[in-house]
Amino acid sequence: MKIITINRQFGSGGREVGKRLAEALNIAFYDKELLNMIAEETKMHPDFIDKFDEVNVMNFNFSFGRSFYTYQQSPTEQVQIAQGNIIKQIADKESAVIMGRCASHILKDSNPFKIFIYSSDMDLRVKRCFAKDPNDKKSEKDMIKEINKIDKQRAKYFEYYTNEKWLDISQYNLCIDTAKVDIKTAVSMIVSAINNN
Amino acid sequence: MKIITINRQFGSGGREVGKRLAEALNIAFYDKELLNMIAEETKMHPDFIDKFDEVNVMNFNFSFGRSFYTYQQSPTEQVQIAQGNIIKQIADKESAVIMGRCASHILKDSNPFKIFIYSSDMDLRVKRCFAKDPNDKKSEKDMIKEINKIDKQRAKYFEYYTNEKWLDISQYNLCIDTAKVDIKTAVSMIVSAINNN
Repeated sequence: MKIITINRQFGSGGREVGKRLAEALNIAFYDKELLNMIAEETKMHPDFIDKFDEVNVMNFNFSFGRSFYTYQQSPTEQVQIAQGNIIKQIADKESAVIMGRCASHILKDSNPFKIFIYSSDMDLRVKRCFAKDPNDKKSEKDMIKEINKIDKQRAKYFEYYTNEKWLDISQYNLCIDTAKVDIKTAVSMIVSAINNN
Repeated sequence: MKIITINRQFGSGGREVGKRLAEALNIAFYDKELLNMIAEETKMHPDFIDKFDEVNVMNFNFSFGRSFYTYQQSPTEQVQIAQGNIIKQIADKESAVIMGRCASHILKDSNPFKIFIYSSDMDLRVKRCFAKDPNDKKSEKDMIKEINKIDKQRAKYFEYYTNEKWLDISQYNLCIDTAKVDIKTAVSMIVSAINNN
C-alpha cells in the first residue's frame, strides 16, 4: 500500500504534481474529492464545507445543551472529524495521493511518504494562477495578495491541527521547488523515490 | 556553470550525496577542502580554523589599536571573510558542489541550486556515524547527543550569518530525507533535476 501526502503552496503546481503522480503510479487521487465525501458523511452542503476547507476556524462554537456537561460539536469540528475519518478510511483501503488537509499528520502512524511542493518564483505562481482561470480579471498585485493569503491560511490551518510549522523541513520526506524543477521532472523524481522506498 | 550547495544534518549522509553527485556530474567538490584554502589565505593553522568550522562564535574580539576608530578583525571574522571570498572565487571559476558553510547564502546572487539533505531516522544517523569511525567508543546515547549538538551548531551558524532558519523549506530548492530515499536514488534524482534545470 502506498500512501503519499502532498502539501503545497498555492500556485506552485502541487495539485498537478499530485494528479500526474497518481496517474503514473496508477493509484487514487484525493483533493477536492474529499469535500463531497465529507458532505455525504456530515449531511452538510458541499458549499458550506468548502468554506472550511484548509482554513483554520479558531472560534469553535461551544453550545451547551441539556446539562452543563453535554457538549455539542460545532460544524467546524464535525467537518474536521469527518475529514479525519475519511482520510483514515482511504489509507486503510487503497494506495492514494492525498492533497493537503493535514493528511500527513492524520496518517502519521501509517508512515506515509510526505511531500511538500512549493515555488520560489512568485511570477511563475501568478502566471500559473491566471492560466488556471483565464476569466480572472484580478490585477497582478491582487493575485499576489490572494496567493499569500491562501498560503497563510494553509499554514495556520496546518499549525493549528498539528502543532508543527508548515514550512519546517522535518515535517516532510521530500520538498521540491517547481521554480527550479519542472513538473514532469518532479513527478519522475518522486516516482523513483517511491519505487525505491 | 553549475553551482550546487548542500546543507545537511549530521549523520544524514549529506556528504556522501554531495561527493557522489560531484562525481556523477563530473564537477568539483568542496567540503573540508575549503579549510586548507582558508588556512592558506589567512596564514592561520588549519586546526585552528577547523575549530570555527560551521560553528557560530558570537563573541567577536574587538581589539582597539592606535586610535579609537581603528578596528582590527578578530580571527573568527578573518576566517569568515576568507571563506566567503574563497567560495565566491570557486563559483566564478568552475562548476562545483559546495557543502554547508552558508554557501547557499554567500552565492545567492548567482542563483545556485540549493539542496538540504536530512534524515528523519535517528537510529540510521547513529549507525552511519559509528560506521564512519569504527574506533569511536561512544555510547549510543552520547552519539545522539553529539548529533543533536552538531545540528544545533550548524543551525545557529546558518541563522547567525543568513538571518534565516536552517530548517525552513524556502531556503532550498530540493530537500531529501535519506531515511526514505536511499543515497543512490537521491543522487540520481538530483542529477535529473540539475540536468533538466
